[in-house]
Amino acid sequence: MKIQGEHFQSLRFNADSAVLTILDQTLLPFQVCWVQLTTLEQVCSAISTMQVRGAPAIGAVAAYGIVFAVKQNVSLNIAAAALKATRPTAINLAWAVDRMLVCLQSVIVGEHYATACVEAKKIADEDVIACSAIGDAGLAIIESILEKKSSTAINILTHCNAGWLATVDWGTALAPIYKAYEKGIDVHVWVDETRPRNQGASLTCFELKEQGVKHTLISDNAGGYLMQAGEVDMCIVGSDRTTANGDVCNKIGTYLKALAAADNQVPFYVALPSSTIDWALCTGKEIPIEYRSEEEVLCITGLNKQQQLITVDITAQGVKALNPAFDVTPAKYITGLITEYGVFEASSKSLAALKEKIANA
Amino acid sequence: MKIQGEHFQSLRFNADSAVLTILDQTLLPFQVCWVQLTTLEQVCSAISTMQVRGAPAIGAVAAYGIVFAVKQNVSLNIAAAALKATRPTAINLAWAVDRMLVCLQSVIVGEHYATACVEAKKIADEDVIACSAIGDAGLAIIESILEKKSSTAINILTHCNAGWLATVDWGTALAPIYKAYEKGIDVHVWVDETRPRNQGASLTCFELKEQGVKHTLISDNAGGYLMQAGEVDMCIVGSDRTTANGDVCNKIGTYLKALAAADNQVPFYVALPSSTIDWALCTGKEIPIEYRSEEEVLCITGLNKQQQLITVDITAQGVKALNPAFDVTPAKYITGLITEYGVFEASSKSLAALKEKIANA
Repeated sequence: MKIQGEHFQSLRFNADSAVLTILDQTLLPFQVCWVQLTTLEQVCSAISTMQVRGAPAIGAVAAYGIVFAVKQNVSLNIAAAALKATRPTAINLAWAVDRMLVCLQSVIVGEHYATACVEAKKIADEDVIACSAIGDAGLAIIESILEKKSSTAINILTHCNAGWLATVDWGTALAPIYKAYEKGIDVHVWVDETRPRNQGASLTCFELKEQGVKHTLISDNAGGYLMQAGEVDMCIVGSDRTTANGDVCNKIGTYLKALAAADNQVPFYVALPSSTIDWALCTGKEIPIEYRSEEEVLCITGLNKQQQLITVDITAQGVKALNPAFDVTPAKYITGLITEYGVFEASSKSLAALKEKIANA
Repeated sequence: MKIQGEHFQSLRFNADSAVLTILDQTLLPFQVCWVQLTTLEQVCSAISTMQVRGAPAIGAVAAYGIVFAVKQNVSLNIAAAALKATRPTAINLAWAVDRMLVCLQSVIVGEHYATACVEAKKIADEDVIACSAIGDAGLAIIESILEKKSSTAINILTHCNAGWLATVDWGTALAPIYKAYEKGIDVHVWVDETRPRNQGASLTCFELKEQGVKHTLISDNAGGYLMQAGEVDMCIVGSDRTTANGDVCNKIGTYLKALAAADNQVPFYVALPSSTIDWALCTGKEIPIEYRSEEEVLCITGLNKQQQLITVDITAQGVKALNPAFDVTPAKYITGLITEYGVFEASSKSLAALKEKIANA
């Protein structure tokens, strides 16, 4: 998608120089800074410090972590363990790493680097195709909701950032919005700030602004009120891990919006590439929830009047905080799962059908 | 309650010098700064800039606004209108102003000042007594929840600040917690940050810390997850206005926590002095919701490394925000209303009984 009118993907790899270039998301929206990664260690650090975040983007970058491991002659098992340890919740990370390892098993060591480069690129390219397909499937839902409305405008609420920055391109939750915008639909997005890391305020607003899509920032507390007031036609969020029964693990606070949507008969959709589904887990209760540093709650980073990026304390010294990074939305509160294979009910039965579709694809 | 071990109320009035001293809540927890008010205009400004906030505290301060109006020979009707216009949602404001006017109607002008001083002090003193009684009624609930637990510790979640700073003393939602703490109960409080103005992070954490009550700050997004995880035994929040059917208008985001509490069978209580009940309104849908400046969402104020209070932008320039300050929690999600007259069901029938009790008191 676009930055200042120019098209970018969230990562690009140069096989000749073996350099992976990613956008440093910790500096957005204030600085657009591309970072070059050339080692496994740098990839692990970029994921754990959230220079790159978003389940599909993490998966693609982790695949290049394996590319670097091959180049550095690091044991693949050690590299895989190191990459998987960077973030515990997003399943694409493990999925992409395992896929790389399986792929390398069938080729001789001398071909490992070239094969790894091809497979990592395939993972990234497939993500773009999947997200575009998610966009098309979601666009159809937007159009059907619009058909039932008296107005020609649609208000969509989203939480956190599941846009192109969280993937390789297009995004998951934002892909249908971009497709609707490109089709000339009058779409407006309510952007949840998404404390404590403010991915809504910093990343989603940045994306939508650069693309030209109308949006309004709201505090995480406001979404329920807006739904009560009839100001939200639908919600679309992403997913870091989805279990076989349709439970969705996503950024902390997603669950609260799903409850409000259910209470106000607002359709609540989750957009996800099928790589985000953890077929091994029966319910969301089994998903390990990442606890991050309390500093993320106790402090906020922003731009001061001198245009410097600084961090301020929002509470008195000595106050303790707890920082769970994800929550699980039970399947019963989810209207539908928008995947690259179409829209599925959030249920074991429906996801079993998706699994079969994937196996036959 | 206490600041650095010394007992304070959130306001004090000296009738000889006609000076009202309030704690500037916009500077807490970083600076404990007492501000002296001597005119109606200063009172209006203190309320609208939220140097004083919290429905009961606003009511008491507004009563002194009428005292100053008398002293300044400002028409009482003009003064009343000016005071009521400062904040539209909290009903205690109008309640206290009207009570002052009714009281002054029955005395000659020469006695207006002395009468106003006595009545304003009465409003403040009654608030202290009401909040203490709320504390006792809430303590009984805490004890009954503890009885059913295997553990001797209780975890209570609260939103925004409904502590002594929001009243004259004791608080509403925090009064039961203070009473439990004084009785030696092992009470721990989950404090919602309460974006956009962060009253939880700044005021509730400050109060609890000064009092010595265990607490942990969480982002507003985290409460649902903690309830799912069984880490919340009960919720207690305050109210800015309660309607005759038991609907509760409180700080934006309260509704989301009530939904999560209902979904996880966590008791959800609202603590309020009866002055917060708007008997003229049948349901919460009739309550005017205050929209505050978008700057509150776009910026955050905190302490930088040099211990200076500064404001930073959390999103790019040009992003728009919407800032509704309150939401309405439907009565059906409320386990009970804790008042100075005891605990009442959030229903028209139960509140009608409370009304009769007040009339006969």
